[in-house]
Amino acid sequence: MKLGEIAKLIGGKLNGDADILISHIASIEDAKEGAITWASHPRYKKWLNSTSASCVIVSENSIPFTKNGRPATIRVENPDLAVYKLLRVFYPESLPCKEISPQAHISESAKMGKEVSIGAFVFIGEQTVIGDNVIIYPNVYIGNEVKIDNGTHIYPNVTILDKTIIGRNVRIYSGAVIGTDGFAYTHSKGKHTHIPHCGGVIIEEYVEIGALSTIARSVVGNTIIKKGTKIDNLVHIAHNVVIDEHSIITAQVGVAGSVKMGKNVVIGGQAGIGDHIVIGDNVTIGGQSGVTKDVKQGITVCGYPAAPRRQSNLAYSLLMKLPELFKRVSEIEKNCFNNK
Amino acid sequence: MKLGEIAKLIGGKLNGDADILISHIASIEDAKEGAITWASHPRYKKWLNSTSASCVIVSENSIPFTKNGRPATIRVENPDLAVYKLLRVFYPESLPCKEISPQAHISESAKMGKEVSIGAFVFIGEQTVIGDNVIIYPNVYIGNEVKIDNGTHIYPNVTILDKTIIGRNVRIYSGAVIGTDGFAYTHSKGKHTHIPHCGGVIIEEYVEIGALSTIARSVVGNTIIKKGTKIDNLVHIAHNVVIDEHSIITAQVGVAGSVKMGKNVVIGGQAGIGDHIVIGDNVTIGGQSGVTKDVKQGITVCGYPAAPRRQSNLAYSLLMKLPELFKRVSEIEKNCFNNK
Amino acid sequence: MKLGEIAKLIGGKLNGDADILISHIASIEDAKEGAITWASHPRYKKWLNSTSASCVIVSENSIPFTKNGRPATIRVENPDLAVYKLLRVFYPESLPCKEISPQAHISESAKMGKEVSIGAFVFIGEQTVIGDNVIIYPNVYIGNEVKIDNGTHIYPNVTILDKTIIGRNVRIYSGAVIGTDGFAYTHSKGKHTHIPHCGGVIIEEYVEIGALSTIARSVVGNTIIKKGTKIDNLVHIAHNVVIDEHSIITAQVGVAGSVKMGKNVVIGGQAGIGDHIVIGDNVTIGGQSGVTKDVKQGITVCGYPAAPRRQSNLAYSLLMKLPELFKRVSEIEKNCFNNK
Repeated sequence: MKLGEIAKLIGGKLNGDADILISHIASIEDAKEGAITWASHPRYKKWLNSTSASCVIVSENSIPFTKNGRPATIRVENPDLAVYKLLRVFYPESLPCKEISPQAHISESAKMGKEVSIGAFVFIGEQTVIGDNVIIYPNVYIGNEVKIDNGTHIYPNVTILDKTIIGRNVRIYSGAVIGTDGFAYTHSKGKHTHIPHCGGVIIEEYVEIGALSTIARSVVGNTIIKKGTKIDNLVHIAHNVVIDEHSIITAQVGVAGSVKMGKNVVIGGQAGIGDHIVIGDNVTIGGQSGVTKDVKQGITVCGYPAAPRRQSNLAYSLLMKLPELFKRVSEIEKNCFNNK
Repeated sequence: MKLGEIAKLIGGKLNGDADILISHIASIEDAKEGAITWASHPRYKKWLNSTSASCVIVSENSIPFTKNGRPATIRVENPDLAVYKLLRVFYPESLPCKEISPQAHISESAKMGKEVSIGAFVFIGEQTVIGDNVIIYPNVYIGNEVKIDNGTHIYPNVTILDKTIIGRNVRIYSGAVIGTDGFAYTHSKGKHTHIPHCGGVIIEEYVEIGALSTIARSVVGNTIIKKGTKIDNLVHIAHNVVIDEHSIITAQVGVAGSVKMGKNVVIGGQAGIGDHIVIGDNVTIGGQSGVTKDVKQGITVCGYPAAPRRQSNLAYSLLMKLPELFKRVSEIEKNCFNNK
Repeated sequence: MKLGEIAKLIGGKLNGDADILISHIASIEDAKEGAITWASHPRYKKWLNSTSASCVIVSENSIPFTKNGRPATIRVENPDLAVYKLLRVFYPESLPCKEISPQAHISESAKMGKEVSIGAFVFIGEQTVIGDNVIIYPNVYIGNEVKIDNGTHIYPNVTILDKTIIGRNVRIYSGAVIGTDGFAYTHSKGKHTHIPHCGGVIIEEYVEIGALSTIARSVVGNTIIKKGTKIDNLVHIAHNVVIDEHSIITAQVGVAGSVKMGKNVVIGGQAGIGDHIVIGDNVTIGGQSGVTKDVKQGITVCGYPAAPRRQSNLAYSLLMKLPELFKRVSEIEKNCFNNK
């Protein structure tokens, strides 16, 4: 593809030879002759002068850096979004199956939308409704009375249990489990008896659920992941949790039962949130934090037990100075005794 | 269903109109006209006066709260157990398949019990024995010489490897892996060589294993999960671990190799237990704890490294006051020097 | 099998009756008459005098302990490696299928090596190349343009996505997901937009990936797990990570995006490593550690934030003595005030 065509496609201003041929997209560290790359984060600045890329996509207002016209640049408002467009042109997504695989098991009462693509060894239960342009990769299990709206993709080996409701343009990545029973038992005479979990799971539009993550269903009522929220891999979301719109939950986070979380919450990897906790809008929770009480909107917390970031970071940095502090206190005690 | 019938079914004492029609079960926060709900935990008290539910199931000895006969109440010994019965009546469990799906692969030497239900794309290996009334959902893999006793349910996409023994009325939830090789290698000249893991995994009756949890097999000998123990999602149980009866292991817990755990142990989410550690009966381990040495029976520990709860909680609360303590010590030092 | 034959097979020196019959292999704690066992770790010494095993495999230079010629011993250079050989003789690995199951879905353009074993309900995509002696268990999904080299085993319910490259003699355990999209979005006006992840995952020879672990692919460039590295269960490896040769990553570890890790690194369970961090060769990271900055080669770190082991262990042990320290400081303050 010629640089001129690329500049047109991503709506950017080309500075360089429009006839240069681009064969692939690469990161700025790895890019060689023939590659186009991009620089959106200040951390990539150091590579700009040494890259062998034929072209770099940069931000409109970035400082010029080319020497003797090499590499070429294309200036755009948002380099990330520009590369997003370009990636799909260079690497089109492959379909698991053109239509409905004859090796899939589709229950008689299930309803299929238009232009669905359903792979081999997919099981779809009774009364389940699949929307238009849905892609379901091989080896997926979808139970009874599930609804999956238009444009949603379900990757291989996913399990979606009965009555789950999934919105438009959702992505459920490989091996994820949606709608498993919550971890609630009645305890009597030292034994634990299973409670049937008959509630539902609702996944709204543009949500993404990472590989091998699990969203549990409750006894009654719904576990809800709202519009645009993105969840990474190996995350545990317990029963009755509600996560509001456009939140970011990083890998291996655990969210216990009945937590209510606001909009635009960001949670770092391996953090845990105790049951029934309420997290406000725009809260940020540091990686590996243990959240043991409610967090008000707009606050950043870290550590265990989670506390406001500045306080927590200071405390943990002083933790490493405890050996010194104990010595200082012993020294003082000697002095005090001597003074007496 | 009429309230009178429901009261009879759950063996409770109705206070209200026996002819009221109930259409569904809801939580006390969400319950509307036509719903029956229940209140078993003190935390739900605040909802009792404002709920729109048509009926609330309460404990025998709870204080009356209805006004003008609304909502109706049914008094029972254990509201949770009562709702348990009711849920299965309102929401009967659906079967993946009436009998044995023609799309399943059942090895010739496998033996099937009576009234088994085996879904599509299930693989069952040689010499494997499946008991009566076992339900195996689609896309499950069961290896060779596995034994699964009566009444056990295996949910979709589960993997059960060779020679695993599973008792009666067990539940293995979606995507769980039972019997994978333990993580043991011989180390020689900087390389790690795989050791064949030829031991077994034994899962006793009434155990439940959560979605995407994994129980490893050992080189020789058995990994054992004893009667009635319940394990949540994304839990890692290493090789040669023994967990005694009626324990509770919450989500994302990691139990390292050869740990021996007593009865009625409770472990909070994301806690980790080091290898070869011995945990006594009735021990409770707080969420995110790191257990680095044996814990005697009856003790509650938390934090990292895990210590008795009171001590650990106090230490961690003082951690956040370290900045203040460092200031105080500096202040004293100034005074001491001045005194000299 | 007779002891004489066993001694010959493992190249060891038998001290005892060569005609004794051995029926199985057991751990030294559990071994009974008829069993052969082994003692490689000093921790097993205490069992040597009381074991009922018919024979113990011990290290060449271990102190004699038999009384009246019981139990027999076989002396070898490395007891672990000796048992490794023996286990495969006593417990041969079973194959999921003799050849290619007629119930597998093999795309027309896929190429199969010699003596492959491919189970039922396996999906293999277009242009994928499978080497000689590869074993693929049932219910595995393998996408398009994947390469799997000779002697590799893929266990049930694994997902391997497009263009992944897997070397010789690799083991991918049950339910693992290789090549899922990394967790990277463009953020604009409070919304998060998916970026196509078109990079690859390269798994080199003799690597093992544990059950339910996941290795993500990057936007461009490769995520690489180098030769001989072993990864345990439920581990998260993010996009663009490079892990060098012969490293050991224990269960539930999380490695964030673009981390570069050296050779012979060892990471304990549940540790987390922040994005873009560089870990040197021969580094050891303690269980549950939180690594927040680069770690130089040869160092052992633990705790949160991770610090050199001695310092960190001391600090955490003093953490539990904080209540005492606060009292001591208050006491001093009283004295200081009294002195004034």
